[in-house]
Amino acid sequence: MHSLGKLAELIKADLRGDPAAIVRRARSFDLAEDGDITLASDQSYRDRVNDSNATALIVSSMMDGVSKNLLIAANPKLAFARAIQALHGAAYEPTVVSDDFAVGRNCVLGVDLSILPRVTVGDNVVIGDRVTLHPGAVIGNNCHIGDDTIIHPNVTIYHDCRVGSRCIVHAGTVIGADGFGFVPDEQGHQVKLLHLGRVVVEDDCEIGANCAIDRAGFGDTILRRGVKLDNLIQIGHNCELGENTVVAALTGFSGGTRVGANCVIAGQVGTNQHVTIGQRVVVTARAGVTKDVPDGAVIGGMIPARDLTAWRKVQVIYSRLPELANKMKELERSIEELKLEIKGKG
Amino acid sequence: MHSLGKLAELIKADLRGDPAAIVRRARSFDLAEDGDITLASDQSYRDRVNDSNATALIVSSMMDGVSKNLLIAANPKLAFARAIQALHGAAYEPTVVSDDFAVGRNCVLGVDLSILPRVTVGDNVVIGDRVTLHPGAVIGNNCHIGDDTIIHPNVTIYHDCRVGSRCIVHAGTVIGADGFGFVPDEQGHQVKLLHLGRVVVEDDCEIGANCAIDRAGFGDTILRRGVKLDNLIQIGHNCELGENTVVAALTGFSGGTRVGANCVIAGQVGTNQHVTIGQRVVVTARAGVTKDVPDGAVIGGMIPARDLTAWRKVQVIYSRLPELANKMKELERSIEELKLEIKGKG
Amino acid sequence: MHSLGKLAELIKADLRGDPAAIVRRARSFDLAEDGDITLASDQSYRDRVNDSNATALIVSSMMDGVSKNLLIAANPKLAFARAIQALHGAAYEPTVVSDDFAVGRNCVLGVDLSILPRVTVGDNVVIGDRVTLHPGAVIGNNCHIGDDTIIHPNVTIYHDCRVGSRCIVHAGTVIGADGFGFVPDEQGHQVKLLHLGRVVVEDDCEIGANCAIDRAGFGDTILRRGVKLDNLIQIGHNCELGENTVVAALTGFSGGTRVGANCVIAGQVGTNQHVTIGQRVVVTARAGVTKDVPDGAVIGGMIPARDLTAWRKVQVIYSRLPELANKMKELERSIEELKLEIKGKG
Repeated sequence: MHSLGKLAELIKADLRGDPAAIVRRARSFDLAEDGDITLASDQSYRDRVNDSNATALIVSSMMDGVSKNLLIAANPKLAFARAIQALHGAAYEPTVVSDDFAVGRNCVLGVDLSILPRVTVGDNVVIGDRVTLHPGAVIGNNCHIGDDTIIHPNVTIYHDCRVGSRCIVHAGTVIGADGFGFVPDEQGHQVKLLHLGRVVVEDDCEIGANCAIDRAGFGDTILRRGVKLDNLIQIGHNCELGENTVVAALTGFSGGTRVGANCVIAGQVGTNQHVTIGQRVVVTARAGVTKDVPDGAVIGGMIPARDLTAWRKVQVIYSRLPELANKMKELERSIEELKLEIKGKG
Repeated sequence: MHSLGKLAELIKADLRGDPAAIVRRARSFDLAEDGDITLASDQSYRDRVNDSNATALIVSSMMDGVSKNLLIAANPKLAFARAIQALHGAAYEPTVVSDDFAVGRNCVLGVDLSILPRVTVGDNVVIGDRVTLHPGAVIGNNCHIGDDTIIHPNVTIYHDCRVGSRCIVHAGTVIGADGFGFVPDEQGHQVKLLHLGRVVVEDDCEIGANCAIDRAGFGDTILRRGVKLDNLIQIGHNCELGENTVVAALTGFSGGTRVGANCVIAGQVGTNQHVTIGQRVVVTARAGVTKDVPDGAVIGGMIPARDLTAWRKVQVIYSRLPELANKMKELERSIEELKLEIKGKG
Repeated sequence: MHSLGKLAELIKADLRGDPAAIVRRARSFDLAEDGDITLASDQSYRDRVNDSNATALIVSSMMDGVSKNLLIAANPKLAFARAIQALHGAAYEPTVVSDDFAVGRNCVLGVDLSILPRVTVGDNVVIGDRVTLHPGAVIGNNCHIGDDTIIHPNVTIYHDCRVGSRCIVHAGTVIGADGFGFVPDEQGHQVKLLHLGRVVVEDDCEIGANCAIDRAGFGDTILRRGVKLDNLIQIGHNCELGENTVVAALTGFSGGTRVGANCVIAGQVGTNQHVTIGQRVVVTARAGVTKDVPDGAVIGGMIPARDLTAWRKVQVIYSRLPELANKMKELERSIEELKLEIKGKG
């Protein structure tokens, strides 16, 4: 719990109200009660500020006729994220090392670890300080896990991969499986391209549940500092995602895709192999990125769902578009001929 | 095994044939042999009823000139589902509790459990009666698992989540990982929105393999009674799926999506954040749902694949559509002018 | 390491250069140093062959004015795949059987196994020779795993399934979960279609990470010899994929899909139920396959992403296509009328 005066300081907001008032929890607008702080930046919530039971509300600008404690922040959502952390962020406490920890030879283990039951670690692994390994986590030979990183249950990290400090890897994710590369031989049998590279996840990354991040053929598949991935994301071999880039669920990056820093890639997006996406690019949901994208571009290509019957009618014409375009050229010619004819008769 | 007389009763069908005939197995039409019951509701199978070796066939209406035992049901597929259960559904038998069960403090365990090897359960967990926990299942602190529920191998359920009675959670699924919420700070670093909510899976739900169901920011992500999910499905934070709704594979619901009861959501569908889909809605495969959908609507928007060369020709014109529309307006104007000119000369 | 003379023989290439020169590693073009072999088949690399530090380069045809050792191969990528294997492929060495191996009754275990810690195997399982089972692998009752197969960490194989010889199953994949089949009853409750079939993975298949391959309702879901799957792929109940077919990430095959031999199915593709795709078919990324596809066809239907504003303009017209087509017919009629009128006045 914090006084509003203290909290305003922590979240970098201006307080209009009682600095001695106490807040104990953060809650969403409709769940907030006395003792809570909430967010009211959307217009629909601003209209209802006086109805809220919250002790304090974070808003984007001063509001007249409001009797509530207000915390005014240029970026209210950021201020709220910080308020949640200030009120609910728990300090790390190690749970010691389970006595069934299966650990290989020549490992270097940090201090204050939380190794839960049923964790398996290979040979020559380096585990930093204050690392949490949840049940079912499997870490291959020669891996390196940085300080303060949390590996959730049933995560698999193949040999020779690196995960930086302060990373979170959610349950079921697989890091370092072989990239997908096969060449058909003379008989049509698929010959495997052995993948000799690694996966490198830099500091401060968070990776969602049940993702798959493949190792490089040669060199590294790289998630740069601060990359954040949602669930069920596919990162092909030799991809590189730039700093602070966020990617939503079910998106897949084909082998060799490069994405710049500070991009926002929405869900169910796909990329062609070896595409390069610049910095600060926004790709909207379900877009298929087939060629390079310059810095700062906003691209999309999602088909919004609509009434099925109406959409089918549209699709019928869609299929006939080349025919329609030709017809239009004919009409143009006919009109030109008519003009000449009329002129001739003039 | 059952007599046809008994089976007709169990599956609520009318028998035209020998009530004393015995069936031992259910099989698909082409695999069915003597002693089997099968389904022949599609026209292609109806045409071949006399060729079948099955002892009995479930059909939708009386058929003339057929010498086989027929079970006539208004909903033959439902009757067949019941027949399979009547003949093949095994009664639950507990396999006792493995001696390597890793269980935390203050847990309440039901009776007649099947706890297989290598299961890990946290503190303050409540496990109902006749629950099956398969190898590699990990259940976090403060979770609640209802009676008769089956958790398949390598499933992860994070802390504070609830799974109801008679649920089935297939292998590799992750319930309760953090929702995907980040806000860039002044330096572009992504600040995590801590997720303090839960996941609540009500009774009689089935969740496929390798799904990811995120916990709510505040409050609950909810699967209502009888929801059925296929594999590799993403359920974002704070989603709510209504009773009996079924969802096919690789579909993703963005944070805050609400889906009503009795909907059918096909595969590879995606939704925008905070979209509300009504009751009894059908969304066809690969549709992107960008706005609210009323009760009973049938919506779609999938691009059927076609010959690549033909499709590329269509796409060229598709890209030029605004130009085409302008050209058409020009033609319209030209025709009007011609009409006036002709009139003038008339 | 190999001499170039020996390596040329192993990869079936013609050597133009020093047969006694030694190569120790394969590397990508830009990473290759002295002692390495690399691939320079793309034109961009061919132009830079003289700049390379590699000891030898694989190319598709003789090049003049090149001082490097060249290995000329009709299919350079295939030759390179073989070179990587010749230089980096490790001979199998068993790591013995972990003393915590949890194995059921009546199992038949081959020789020279590598059973790592925390592996769980059910009853009546047959494990071939030289099989590797990684930590967290769970294999159900009555399964059969062929010789030389590698099951990576946290893989789940349900009861009664078969995986052939020389297969690789990557981490987190689930084989044999129930197919997705439900029938709503009179009250709208979804009644489960019990799935009594199996999954059969034939020899030489490779399955990526976090895939889900469902068991058949009756009979088998089948991956034929040499099928290669990328990550996060959904294979519905009763699907059959033909020999040597490769499938990229995030693709989903609905129940009963049949795919012929030697197909290339790109990423994020989906198929309708019971579709049959012929042999040697190519389906490009993100296509939705709604009907049968003949042998040798190349089909697609991906929407390339483009500038969002431009694309929205296109979409506005797209929605109005039926209207546009009608308008065009009107214009056509107007022109015909004008022609007649002019004729009349002639």
